[in-house]
Amino acid sequence: MRYLEDFQVGQTFELGEFTLTAEDIIAFGERYDPQSFHLSDDADGPFGGLIASGWQTGSNCQHLLVTKLLGDSASLGSPGVERIRFLKPVRPGVSYAARFKVQEVTPSKRREDRGTMLGQILLTDPKGVLVYSLDAFILFSRQGATPGGA
Amino acid sequence: MRYLEDFQVGQTFELGEFTLTAEDIIAFGERYDPQSFHLSDDADGPFGGLIASGWQTGSNCQHLLVTKLLGDSASLGSPGVERIRFLKPVRPGVSYAARFKVQEVTPSKRREDRGTMLGQILLTDPKGVLVYSLDAFILFSRQGATPGGA
Repeated sequence: MRYLEDFQVGQTFELGEFTLTAEDIIAFGERYDPQSFHLSDDADGPFGGLIASGWQTGSNCQHLLVTKLLGDSASLGSPGVERIRFLKPVRPGVSYAARFKVQEVTPSKRREDRGTMLGQILLTDPKGVLVYSLDAFILFSRQGATPGGA
Repeated sequence: MRYLEDFQVGQTFELGEFTLTAEDIIAFGERYDPQSFHLSDDADGPFGGLIASGWQTGSNCQHLLVTKLLGDSASLGSPGVERIRFLKPVRPGVSYAARFKVQEVTPSKRREDRGTMLGQILLTDPKGVLVYSLDAFILFSRQGATPGGA
């Protein structure tokens, strides 16, 4: 179980990979982001084919983050996102790898039982090209602040 | 059909409302954000019950934005998000209303056929309390830049 003090600036965690099918992309697009380039593989469109909604990319990165790191932590949710960059289209059938980097760890001044981490997710394609980045805050309990804490 | 020049700083658009059921929240949580407070209505949890993943809130706002505004526009997608704030929990059975505000409109210096808008989504609960805000860039074609443009 990771608490706030178990994270240090500069730490990195490999979060694993995800691959979306064209059907995955279209289903998400129909439900949440029905712009033409998330619904069909039109080669004449602005991206020369089907691309994932940025919300789908972010949601899949979140899944990796939670299953690989936050699930076994004292996370109390997120107060916000500082920045997202959609650098390259996310396309069907391509495996994307996510890495998480700890950027800041700040104990709360108001509540001694918690603190905030600023973390970064970097998503790269099989050639190592960065396609997506996110900088977000995550709130964590401090060790001993919750029942069961050491 | 709205092009870049059809948006002016300060314009606002009412995007409508959405309501999530507990089943919606749990289904999204299981697929994308399996943290305990997105999976069960545990009153002892950090939020005193079930709350929606921020990615689900954002995706539902995106759906309103696309169906009410971007679908009838020359949108070319988004280069990024400047900021998201998760101010209050989004809970099941509550109707949330979204409003969009144009903050900046900037023609591209490199490509005269397009430009960027910085827009803000504000999501409020039935009492008018702000629960979520997003500031994001959207790229648009300029009028006359695409076939069919006036």
